[in-house]
Amino acid sequence: MEQRPGGRSARVRDAVRQATLAELAEQGYGGLTVENVAIRSGVHKTTVYRRWGSVEGLIADALGIAREEPWPIPDTGSFQEDLREIVLLVQRGFADPVAGPISTAFVTAAAQSGDAARSLHDFFTARHEQAAEVVRRAVERGEVPAGTDGAEVIRMAVAPIYYRLFVTHEPVTEHDAIRAADAATVAARAGVIR
Amino acid sequence: MEQRPGGRSARVRDAVRQATLAELAEQGYGGLTVENVAIRSGVHKTTVYRRWGSVEGLIADALGIAREEPWPIPDTGSFQEDLREIVLLVQRGFADPVAGPISTAFVTAAAQSGDAARSLHDFFTARHEQAAEVVRRAVERGEVPAGTDGAEVIRMAVAPIYYRLFVTHEPVTEHDAIRAADAATVAARAGVIR
Repeated sequence: MEQRPGGRSARVRDAVRQATLAELAEQGYGGLTVENVAIRSGVHKTTVYRRWGSVEGLIADALGIAREEPWPIPDTGSFQEDLREIVLLVQRGFADPVAGPISTAFVTAAAQSGDAARSLHDFFTARHEQAAEVVRRAVERGEVPAGTDGAEVIRMAVAPIYYRLFVTHEPVTEHDAIRAADAATVAARAGVIR
Repeated sequence: MEQRPGGRSARVRDAVRQATLAELAEQGYGGLTVENVAIRSGVHKTTVYRRWGSVEGLIADALGIAREEPWPIPDTGSFQEDLREIVLLVQRGFADPVAGPISTAFVTAAAQSGDAARSLHDFFTARHEQAAEVVRRAVERGEVPAGTDGAEVIRMAVAPIYYRLFVTHEPVTEHDAIRAADAATVAARAGVIR
């Protein structure tokens, strides 16, 4: 019997989380079932039900993987360039044939499940905090006034991408991403994001 | 048999649309059923199924009412004030105990149904176009450079509200609304929203 951390229980958890992500990529939230995750992970269905409870529980746990993944924060020396790279990373992520459907499934799941919404909230809090580093550096360089709310700059820069994808259902281009980043850059420099 | 426009068929349609909105306000998208809409509207269930097909069809048609409603476009004489009023209207709409759940239900429905997504897309296209009037006036007054994309200014002003509500699941305050409007104002004046 393995009892050490990273043993059987951790391997089961990892297999289920990875299977959840793979199913989300292929089927989206609407097609995710506990049964299919059990089959793909090779973990018995009753075990998946006992430990994760439901599709919402699977999603919430899989979001944990995403939250733990290090996120590449650009450091180009220019606030405007850093912000453009962050928004382009988001835009390209949704355009990616594998990562896109997974991210979309997380947002869709959160609209329908309180558990998933709380997990997604925590995920974005972590992302905003990490990405706000580009604002802290810009303040140090004197590009942006002290007192600027870094997380809010990130929200404003990426919000138009999510708005098109999940609210107005419009296409999103690189031009849209750059324009949104530039608008947030100008607003932050002007000292209105506090 | 009434055949004139606005006759029996139109009354049935109006009753069903109003019942859909009332059910959405009370139950949200997750609780909307054709059966309950039939009961509330007094229209026979088989008629509702025949004409609207499903919950998604009901949502798509109810969104038509929302699209046809005139939207109060502010005209304060100041671009910044006009934009603040538009974003505050959105923020207060979602905070409203009746209108809020209906608007939320539309966004949630669109995440799960292509029909609802197309209806919501058309709804927002109409709203952006109407609200862009405040940008056209600002261009005429010389507050904002010619060539500014009015619909995009509106998207950027309101996007942070929707981002908090539907993506990050964070609370939204009037301060958030004013700040988002001011950021879009500054960016539009600087000529980066083209």
